[in-house]
Amino acid sequence: MTTSFHPPVRTLMGPGPSDVSPRVLAAMARPTIGHLDPEFIRMMDEVKAMLKTFFKTDNELTMPISAPGSAGMEACFVNLIEPGDKVIVCQNGVFGGRMKENVVRFGGECILVEDEWGTAISVEKVKAAFAAHDNIKALAFVHAETSTGVRSDAKALCKIAQDNNALSIVDAVTSLGGVELDVDGWGIDAIYSGTQKCLSCPPGISPVSFSDKAVDVVKNRKTPVPSWFLDTNLVMGYWGGGGKRAYHHTAPVNSLYALHESLVMLEEEGLENAWARHQKHHLALRAGLEAMGIGFLVDEADRLPQLNSVYIPEGVDDAAVRAALLKNYNLEIGAGLGALAGKVWRIGLMGSAATQRNVMLCLDALENTLADMNAPINTGVAAQAAAAVFSE
Amino acid sequence: MTTSFHPPVRTLMGPGPSDVSPRVLAAMARPTIGHLDPEFIRMMDEVKAMLKTFFKTDNELTMPISAPGSAGMEACFVNLIEPGDKVIVCQNGVFGGRMKENVVRFGGECILVEDEWGTAISVEKVKAAFAAHDNIKALAFVHAETSTGVRSDAKALCKIAQDNNALSIVDAVTSLGGVELDVDGWGIDAIYSGTQKCLSCPPGISPVSFSDKAVDVVKNRKTPVPSWFLDTNLVMGYWGGGGKRAYHHTAPVNSLYALHESLVMLEEEGLENAWARHQKHHLALRAGLEAMGIGFLVDEADRLPQLNSVYIPEGVDDAAVRAALLKNYNLEIGAGLGALAGKVWRIGLMGSAATQRNVMLCLDALENTLADMNAPINTGVAAQAAAAVFSE
Repeated sequence: MTTSFHPPVRTLMGPGPSDVSPRVLAAMARPTIGHLDPEFIRMMDEVKAMLKTFFKTDNELTMPISAPGSAGMEACFVNLIEPGDKVIVCQNGVFGGRMKENVVRFGGECILVEDEWGTAISVEKVKAAFAAHDNIKALAFVHAETSTGVRSDAKALCKIAQDNNALSIVDAVTSLGGVELDVDGWGIDAIYSGTQKCLSCPPGISPVSFSDKAVDVVKNRKTPVPSWFLDTNLVMGYWGGGGKRAYHHTAPVNSLYALHESLVMLEEEGLENAWARHQKHHLALRAGLEAMGIGFLVDEADRLPQLNSVYIPEGVDDAAVRAALLKNYNLEIGAGLGALAGKVWRIGLMGSAATQRNVMLCLDALENTLADMNAPINTGVAAQAAAAVFSE
Repeated sequence: MTTSFHPPVRTLMGPGPSDVSPRVLAAMARPTIGHLDPEFIRMMDEVKAMLKTFFKTDNELTMPISAPGSAGMEACFVNLIEPGDKVIVCQNGVFGGRMKENVVRFGGECILVEDEWGTAISVEKVKAAFAAHDNIKALAFVHAETSTGVRSDAKALCKIAQDNNALSIVDAVTSLGGVELDVDGWGIDAIYSGTQKCLSCPPGISPVSFSDKAVDVVKNRKTPVPSWFLDTNLVMGYWGGGGKRAYHHTAPVNSLYALHESLVMLEEEGLENAWARHQKHHLALRAGLEAMGIGFLVDEADRLPQLNSVYIPEGVDDAAVRAALLKNYNLEIGAGLGALAGKVWRIGLMGSAATQRNVMLCLDALENTLADMNAPINTGVAAQAAAAVFSE
């Protein structure tokens, strides 16, 4: 017989999922009601309204897709890209590569603009790509690369797209709630995020928003959307608010309770305050790590506060350290991906995980673990350096 | 400011979601851990093993898709159907129509076999469709039509597909855990279900299973799967078990805790015992309803015990009754769909909702509500009729 699963209590400081607040977990466990229940529909409207606030948009098509961020990405491409469409895709990490894969699978032509992993997308290269190609339908890029911890200049990139009469498609999985993001101010046409990063919700839902221009593009497609589940024309009939809802699929009721509660918590804190909190805790973590002698992969100007990619000290066994942190401290940090595997760790400070307690735990656990392995680090200085930032 | 959402406590006897056990809700609220955590991976293996048991299959590709049943349906069609493929789709309710939509969106040619809503799929018509068409790649049908409460003869239909060297694609959203289902015994090639029906889990996850023959078809496609999120080649790299898992998407960790717990509960009860429990409670509900003078839409031989479509008594205002049940009894029952709207109610007895308490509540609430509206029903007899079945 299989027995009930009782997970260990971890501290989640990897690239996501992040620590989930007990308030959000409690919300998730409230009694399930029908997805057409008037009370549920009222809650859906509140979720939509709060997502608009945090995306900083008036877009009517703003809603949570009933599946993880990968499906949110697919929702953008499957609706907006038709066979033969030319799309400039920026790749400076794992998720740009996934965007390319999306374009190609829907019959689009992908023009790839590549930058080194760990660097921001080059605005100049994107300008050059537009100059070199006609009839570009869309520019697609990742605002916050979860694989490296890089923030790219979404505002400047969207401006280039607008100047060239192209749509902008933006991956904000790791940025929403953690750093500045302004959908209407920057003129973003299609954006998707995830619940398990800076919103500190369990994974499984992908908030998306489409501009009116993007909605028009979908409505005027020459071919049907090659997905029934993700067709925004149908999904909006369900999430459309106001009058009668058309049944499309059964919404993940309890997962939406959780999202609702996490958005209420963000409303209580204030979006700008949450951005500032991420920055503050990043500075404290950085001070501690640098005092230890551990350096950052990403240039200071392009660093995401919520995802810190740092070099693994010389001669240290990556997997052994992460296993020891998990075993001895119940602390999860992330491994590097691709060419960065074994070279960097990814330390997340996302949402509810961006606390002083977590910063101090992480520094203490890393210091003890590395010292036990005789790694070349400075000991006895990290905690004080971090504490100094908190007391500023 | 938005406030936390506190749903009313309903009794869910509609077409799904069904009542969720407190054990499952408690599991869902356990602390989130990383989706690559060794403990999470152990739990994923247990979920896969239990799904194999309840689908009655040895299929290696048996796993929960990280999205609702509609996405499970799409996973079957997007992987198996290529442009130009001919598919026989049986339609005797809403969900057969959705299968047709899937075939067409992926470029397939749909040969529709239609039966009246409320009747089972005609095995003879399907045989005739195969006789009239060559090179049929797949037969697709709904085992348990949620829109009408009809069970079709999945075993006989799959046999026809095999005899004609075609794949079978089966919608088991409402059947898994509620009535007999035997994936390997009946030779089903691709099947999808949902968590929010007879598994009594919150909605949002879709268990699927593909036979080795179906996996070969996917591997030998001429064109890439036009979905990245649902490409089984990629998803299986993540759910594949055994060795190292390839990151594909972030699994909905807490929703899978819930599914795990609901499967543990089904294991404790025993699959065949669960089928018998659904049948027993159906018989009691039926006795009560018939004593009241309320009749069934579906012929006795084709009725699903877990979804009872019954005629609304003459002159009764459908919506007013359902609103009164919700307001006065916190009881949800389902409306009719399509041509059956206003003519039938759909009363679910799915999973944890199939209890004596619920049967008696439903009969009492319906009797009182209908009597208050002077509906032409027999009063004072339903409870006794149902109780007689329970005491058999």
